[in-house]
Amino acid sequence: MAEAIKRCERVYLEAYTSILMIEREKLEEFYGRSLIVADRDMVETESDAILERSNEVDVALLVVGDPFGATTHTDILLRARALGIPTEVIHNASIMNAIGACGLQLYNFGQAVSLVFFTDTWKPDSFYDRIAENAKLGMHTLVLLDIKVKEQSIENLARGRKIYEPPRYMSIPLAVSQLAEVEEIRKEGVLDPETTLAIAMSRVGGGPLQRIVAGTLSQLGAQDPSVYGQPLHSLVIVGKRLHPLEVDYASAFAVDEIWKRVARDVYKVPEE
Amino acid sequence: MAEAIKRCERVYLEAYTSILMIEREKLEEFYGRSLIVADRDMVETESDAILERSNEVDVALLVVGDPFGATTHTDILLRARALGIPTEVIHNASIMNAIGACGLQLYNFGQAVSLVFFTDTWKPDSFYDRIAENAKLGMHTLVLLDIKVKEQSIENLARGRKIYEPPRYMSIPLAVSQLAEVEEIRKEGVLDPETTLAIAMSRVGGGPLQRIVAGTLSQLGAQDPSVYGQPLHSLVIVGKRLHPLEVDYASAFAVDEIWKRVARDVYKVPEE
Repeated sequence: MAEAIKRCERVYLEAYTSILMIEREKLEEFYGRSLIVADRDMVETESDAILERSNEVDVALLVVGDPFGATTHTDILLRARALGIPTEVIHNASIMNAIGACGLQLYNFGQAVSLVFFTDTWKPDSFYDRIAENAKLGMHTLVLLDIKVKEQSIENLARGRKIYEPPRYMSIPLAVSQLAEVEEIRKEGVLDPETTLAIAMSRVGGGPLQRIVAGTLSQLGAQDPSVYGQPLHSLVIVGKRLHPLEVDYASAFAVDEIWKRVARDVYKVPEE
Repeated sequence: MAEAIKRCERVYLEAYTSILMIEREKLEEFYGRSLIVADRDMVETESDAILERSNEVDVALLVVGDPFGATTHTDILLRARALGIPTEVIHNASIMNAIGACGLQLYNFGQAVSLVFFTDTWKPDSFYDRIAENAKLGMHTLVLLDIKVKEQSIENLARGRKIYEPPRYMSIPLAVSQLAEVEEIRKEGVLDPETTLAIAMSRVGGGPLQRIVAGTLSQLGAQDPSVYGQPLHSLVIVGKRLHPLEVDYASAFAVDEIWKRVARDVYKVPEE
């Protein structure tokens, strides 16, 4: 990949759909060249700038995670294709597979869901149905937590002012409280705080900054927020088709012995 | 990662759970050091050799794909933990996310399944139920195709002779015919050859050797086998919660216009 990047005339770095866990300067030093930061406007509405002359010279767009993790990147590939520009994709690790670090087997995951920041008037909860579908099959669910970058306030948007709010990343405690809020309304027991096991993961793949915490939803919500460290945070809702080896592996990250007790008594996983 | 490898006293290279798409010699040149090939026996039954003295010096085990893609690797981490040996995982792209290259969105995938080589007397078909579960929810299914490496014949096994059969990798045509065989028996329509869309992928992430072919199961089975190139092959069964953008993106890989017709008439995806 380093060689491919060296061949390029322009190298863009997109980081608004995730968080880059290394400083841009270090990346520039590593690749031995300067990088152009592509913000949300540039990637979503001004992508012509990125594609400019890319049928004549090599141009790279670096992203965090796998290039197919965000629809935004698929869109750019489609636009390049429409313009007859040849493209090449270099894959990368992403949360979709790095999540295996928590000890749950990847093939036991059902569909992934997203949880957005609730507002007073907007609390979309279709994720609850998706988790319920997975739960019914005993599957685990990866819950991707909302990121708000370069958002405008309604006032600034209305006045056409390009003033942006500071970035916000949903934390585990907020995610857990939003799940509890929806469970309170739906009452189907899909996310019962005391009997649902979950695993919180922060900065997966981020080396020493990575955190993994396993417990009931109630336990995860009760931890001091500092336990989870800096964003990005992700959450896994554990499904009932839980294997003794999965329980065992994740027990190293458990808040306390309740992890194993709920696995045995509620999830009916035989002890090894 | 290159720096981490340079620090190690011993570097093992495991390739029997997948296929390494680069020659070992090239990897050795890239890392500037020799690699010890760890075959199946070494990884599964003689892992003590790998872990030897690894509490005193750094030891690396390189794998193809993400370290958490195969239970084998999780086992080694568990054994290291039991011996009090500190471990660090460096994530990597794997088929679990690189599959996004076919244009289907990762969050629309349900659980993944494995398809093993059938014999005259052994045709395990529980994968059919798993695909049915996903299909009922409209989810796509990644079907991982069997790999047989360092297998012994029953006779050699009985006589304790360490003579191994040549490696075998399941091809797309064989996979499709096995799926048809199971559909013939189960008759639930989950894998109807004419109305089920699927995407064949070969050597994903393998640069110029990568192949992607989209069509009905019947169409994929009818292609000349050379179309798919060398192993590894993987197959995606397309779920009904198919998005127009997914249809559009994958249409570049379609055998012919039947892809779009089935998407519209059977999958009921509105045309863009």
